Amino acid sequence: MATLNRRFLLASRPTGRIDPEHFRLVESEIPEIGPGEVLVRNCYLSLDPTNRIWMTDRKQYMPPVQIGDVMRGGAAGQVIRSNNPAFPVGAIVQGLLGWQDYAAIGAGGEIPLVRLPKGLPMSIPTAMGLLNITGFSAYFGLLDVGTPKAGETVVVSAAAGAVGSIVGQIAKIKGCRAVGIAGTPEKCAWIKDELGFDAAINYRDADWQQQLKAACPDGIDVNFENVGGAILDEVLWRMNMRGRVSLCGLISSYNATDPVPGPYNFSMILMKRLRVEGFIVTDFAPRFREAAAELVKWYAEGKIKYRETIVEGLENAPVAINQLFDGGNTGKLIVKIADPPLPVV
Amino acid sequence: MATLNRRFLLASRPTGRIDPEHFRLVESEIPEIGPGEVLVRNCYLSLDPTNRIWMTDRKQYMPPVQIGDVMRGGAAGQVIRSNNPAFPVGAIVQGLLGWQDYAAIGAGGEIPLVRLPKGLPMSIPTAMGLLNITGFSAYFGLLDVGTPKAGETVVVSAAAGAVGSIVGQIAKIKGCRAVGIAGTPEKCAWIKDELGFDAAINYRDADWQQQLKAACPDGIDVNFENVGGAILDEVLWRMNMRGRVSLCGLISSYNATDPVPGPYNFSMILMKRLRVEGFIVTDFAPRFREAAAELVKWYAEGKIKYRETIVEGLENAPVAINQLFDGGNTGKLIVKIADPPLPVV
Repeated sequence: MATLNRRFLLASRPTGRIDPEHFRLVESEIPEIGPGEVLVRNCYLSLDPTNRIWMTDRKQYMPPVQIGDVMRGGAAGQVIRSNNPAFPVGAIVQGLLGWQDYAAIGAGGEIPLVRLPKGLPMSIPTAMGLLNITGFSAYFGLLDVGTPKAGETVVVSAAAGAVGSIVGQIAKIKGCRAVGIAGTPEKCAWIKDELGFDAAINYRDADWQQQLKAACPDGIDVNFENVGGAILDEVLWRMNMRGRVSLCGLISSYNATDPVPGPYNFSMILMKRLRVEGFIVTDFAPRFREAAAELVKWYAEGKIKYRETIVEGLENAPVAINQLFDGGNTGKLIVKIADPPLPVV
Repeated sequence: MATLNRRFLLASRPTGRIDPEHFRLVESEIPEIGPGEVLVRNCYLSLDPTNRIWMTDRKQYMPPVQIGDVMRGGAAGQVIRSNNPAFPVGAIVQGLLGWQDYAAIGAGGEIPLVRLPKGLPMSIPTAMGLLNITGFSAYFGLLDVGTPKAGETVVVSAAAGAVGSIVGQIAKIKGCRAVGIAGTPEKCAWIKDELGFDAAINYRDADWQQQLKAACPDGIDVNFENVGGAILDEVLWRMNMRGRVSLCGLISSYNATDPVPGPYNFSMILMKRLRVEGFIVTDFAPRFREAAAELVKWYAEGKIKYRETIVEGLENAPVAINQLFDGGNTGKLIVKIADPPLPVV
């Protein structure tokens, strides 16, 4: 076992793309744990668009990461020392474990530590996506915020991403027409041919707007929005009367250095009596168990398929995260840090 | 009684401000009425921001006015011939009677003809505002879409306008803090000193953003939005978590000739989990009686005060309507066409 803890501290706030110089890699002793805490050997680090938000000091839904602090990030790992009987040594846990090899952490917090049950029908990286923030965002953002009815048309942007790929499959399970917008022919083929979306549109095609129109012959009732910008604009234009926009992310603007205008078709909210609603998955924390139970069931039944893009080595996180903004990853983007060192309990 | 019917036809679609050349004034015979129809002598014409929308062929919530058709407009008048026992000769009625002296009209339509009860405690122009589309937009847009709770802060833009002035007073009736944004010191004094708003902000003051901040020490819970643009942007920035934006109008963009960007603070919808919802008052048509009963009661109790700006002469409508966009009017903008020619029944 390593005796030092590699930690990525936030060194400066990016004004555009994320660059390795925005982090400082330090090595320190493996931390001691206090009462109620556990020591986790981080195994898989989740890279998510919201990491970019946390690196800024913009107004946001959680406090920004402070300069000099360990970069915040969701991760899964194994408990290797424990002062908390709910999380025994050997347990696999998920939480905001940070960009580091080891985390000394308590059980509470806005995104609390959760234990992965042994014997799940999926790998740890898949569970990190499906049975945590990512899967829960898709579940609550689509069903509770978007409120789709069977027979309606659901359009999701970043449809081959971690959240979007689940959204479209839940839409299908609920009897909707699922249309995905993604950025490569391969991603489009994956969501249409393997995940069962009714249509997939590559927004880099010159005629993507016409493709979207053709893919939504009855208009759009629900938009699950991850991107913003020109994609949201076109979708707003095609929304049906009383349509709903579930606003999960606006990744097209996260790297912006200048103020970003809202959608030019904002007036469609008025003309079509749309409801546009933002959400943060932690608002639904009391119902996470419900979502996990449904998602495990659907996964076991083969109704939800899932994919990760896995990058090896904690040291590569500062470069790998740009895949999210360049369209490099398909499914959830994860950095593998280590295998669990102990037998899993 | 006049023997000719002056009618303003839409001659061309404006690309910026409304100009008299966009209309053609024609004189024709007073129309005959068909089965179930009534002939109305128009007395008061309502000028509303939505007139500008109807003059375009943009995507909108009702069909646009066609070139060569009588300009659509809400009006009140007196029935002078009747083939409909629900609307006897002498009755005062409101409806989409158009920019003309006389209207031959049936009872139905998206905005149906309604009769004003005799003996209302208010003038016809006041009833046109309070007991029709204007008052109902304030009532349902605030209470059903904005869903304010007692103690919350409600901000309304175009607060000295026909809708906005009612919104703030209903907010006060419901126990909220009411903050209005308007465009002159006189308007601000009127809504604060006479209507009872807690604060009024002149958006033409250099420090209006600071004034807004000071007027909303606990942030903004509900925004009743009539304007859009820079005003909406500043309000979005100050919204509280889970705030609601009831989108009634976007008058700042109606005269625009180039595409208008949405709010630069659109991302606040995500960060603050806001609900932004557009509405059109006709969606609430089954509940118009409920609203009218409440509004009459509040008016009779002195809890709602109301004002009109009245311009004399149908011929002046094409120029007068620009007051809406220049900030010229206080309260509802109305063109007086004629007095009711018959005893009112």
